[in-house]
Parts: sequence; structure tokens; C-alpha cells
Amino acid sequence: LSSPWRALLQRALDANAHLKHSTFFQLATVGAAGRPANRTVVFRGFQEQCDKIQINTDARSNKIGEIREWPLGEICWYFTDSWEQFRISGIIDVIDGSSLDPAKLQQREKAWFASSVKSRSQYLGQSPGVPVANDDHIKDVHIDPSAGPVDAYCLLTLDPEKVDYVNLKSNQRLMFTRT
Amino acid sequence: LSSPWRALLQRALDANAHLKHSTFFQLATVGAAGRPANRTVVFRGFQEQCDKIQINTDARSNKIGEIREWPLGEICWYFTDSWEQFRISGIIDVIDGSSLDPAKLQQREKAWFASSVKSRSQYLGQSPGVPVANDDHIKDVHIDPSAGPVDAYCLLTLDPEKVDYVNLKSNQRLMFTRT
Repeated sequence: LSSPWRALLQRALDANAHLKHSTFFQLATVGAAGRPANRTVVFRGFQEQCDKIQINTDARSNKIGEIREWPLGEICWYFTDSWEQFRISGIIDVIDGSSLDPAKLQQREKAWFASSVKSRSQYLGQSPGVPVANDDHIKDVHIDPSAGPVDAYCLLTLDPEKVDYVNLKSNQRLMFTRT
Repeated sequence: LSSPWRALLQRALDANAHLKHSTFFQLATVGAAGRPANRTVVFRGFQEQCDKIQINTDARSNKIGEIREWPLGEICWYFTDSWEQFRISGIIDVIDGSSLDPAKLQQREKAWFASSVKSRSQYLGQSPGVPVANDDHIKDVHIDPSAGPVDAYCLLTLDPEKVDYVNLKSNQRLMFTRT
């Protein structure tokens, strides 16, 4: 059984599905010296059998070290067509190839193969470069579609603890806290 | 003379002006116990003669106390039509009616009168309620259009220190740091 806010989120995803950016949200974390950091990332679905939100990222990006140091995050997801906002806070797990947990390595592999081949080729470049918010600009790079995750590929999962929902059309506000 | 990133931002605002949400961005701050907080707010223009970004907020909302304690913020502003992202970090100043600085009180008054009468009436309610991301849902409340700011009205200004710009169409990335 999934959490009650999942139905609301699914409805919002459906209602905004015609917009490319409907799967983009802003992930806030806390960096060195307590500096807030905020960037656009792409929703890569939920981890199977639970509510953890998946995000693909480059293991070489600054945020990885920052999140390992301080694993709290808050997603702000605004749906521009339905005027709904979800603020989702929780603990972030960083899963790269160095993980010692076989279950996590398997999740990472699953998420890797769930990405488009084009999107995977992003991790073959020399540096993290521009954010992964879309993969349209990626030049064709030869990548074996059956090859597993490369070192630079890192899966983040955010485990929702609190969800603050607001609908700016109906003026409705709902708060969910994991019990 | 304004900062070089201002021209980029103005171009993005113009290119996306047909979208109601083009003036919405996500503001990340750090709350109690180092928890990241992230919410959608509305761009209310720059303060005159400088690059400070103005945001209207309710003095009774949680974020006010949090920002006073830890005044760092990072804006993530994604333009959905032109595929441009601005990450703008800096120090936030909280200006409510209790400020002792006449210049700041004047700024607050100016920002108050720059808001629509409908938007101002939002601050007359009993509680902060839903975010100020749009004022379409506000019921007509009698407010004297010539009356100055009410107690609940609070102006935030974020003074940009670093701007990280990325254009996902051209794959261009630019960083600006205040000198």
C-alpha cells in the first residue's frame, strides 16, 4: 500500500503530462558551511515497493560530497498547469558503484537500464558539465545498450518523511507526515 | 551599471513572459536543525539602483524566523520555455514593520504599493495560509488602496553573490561571482 500523497502526486503528473518540464523539480540540500544549494533535477520514478523518489546524477558533481556530509533534502515540485505544489522532505541516499549493499547496487543497475541510452551516454563525458535536466542536447556517443552502469553514474533516492501539498486553484492545503 | 548576469536574466524573462509562471522560482533556505527548506515564491523585481531580488512574504510564516536565524538563500529559477536555469545565491534581508532603518521601511512601502491591491489584501487574513505564488484565488476584501503596509506584510531581499547560469538548449554554462 502506497502513501496517501502518492495518489495526489500521480494525479498531478497525469494532469501535467503534456508538459516536458512536468517531471522537473528543484532539490534543495545544504552544502559546506551551511549554505543552501538548489537545482533542477528530473524525477526518475519511485523505487519499487516503496515511496523513495529516484534521481539520476553524476558521481563527479559537487552535490554528491555535500549530500554524503549532510543527507537531508527538500524537493519543491511545482506543477505549472494544475497550480499544485509538493514540498517533499526526507533523507537522501547516495548510491554509486562503491556501495557494498548488493540490494542497492541492484537498484542502481535497474535505474541505469530504465534511463534512455542517450541519457546514459551523458556519464561517459569527461566532466559532469550541464545538469541532466534533459538529454536532448547530448551528442550521439557509442554506448553498448547492454552494458551496466559506468562509474560516473550515481543514483540518489529521497525517502519522503513529510509532504506539504498546496493547490493554488482550490486553495486546498494538506500535510502528510510519515508515521 | 548593473551586473552582467542581469542582461541574461532579463532576456529570459522576456522570452518566457507569455507564461504566468515565468516569474515563479524556488527559494531554498536552511531551517531549524539544518533542515533544507524549499518553496515557490514570486519575483517582485529588483530593488532600485541595485541587484537585490525582491520577494513578498507573510511576516507570520515559518520561514521568517528561520531566515533571521540563518540568512543564506539559493534561488533556483528554471525557465520552462527557453530551458534556462539561474541559480542565485546570497544573503537575505528580512524587512518587516519593526525595522529601525528608515531606508528599509521606505523600500518595504514601495514594494507594498507596487503589489496589486488584490495581492495586498492577502495580508489581512487571519493566517498566512497558502503561498503567495499567485493572487487569483483571493476573495475581494475591502482594502484602502492608499493605505500603507499592514503588519503582516514582509519584504525579503536577496543580495546575489553568485549566479550559476545554464542554457540547456545551447549547452552554455556561465558563472558570475560578485567582486
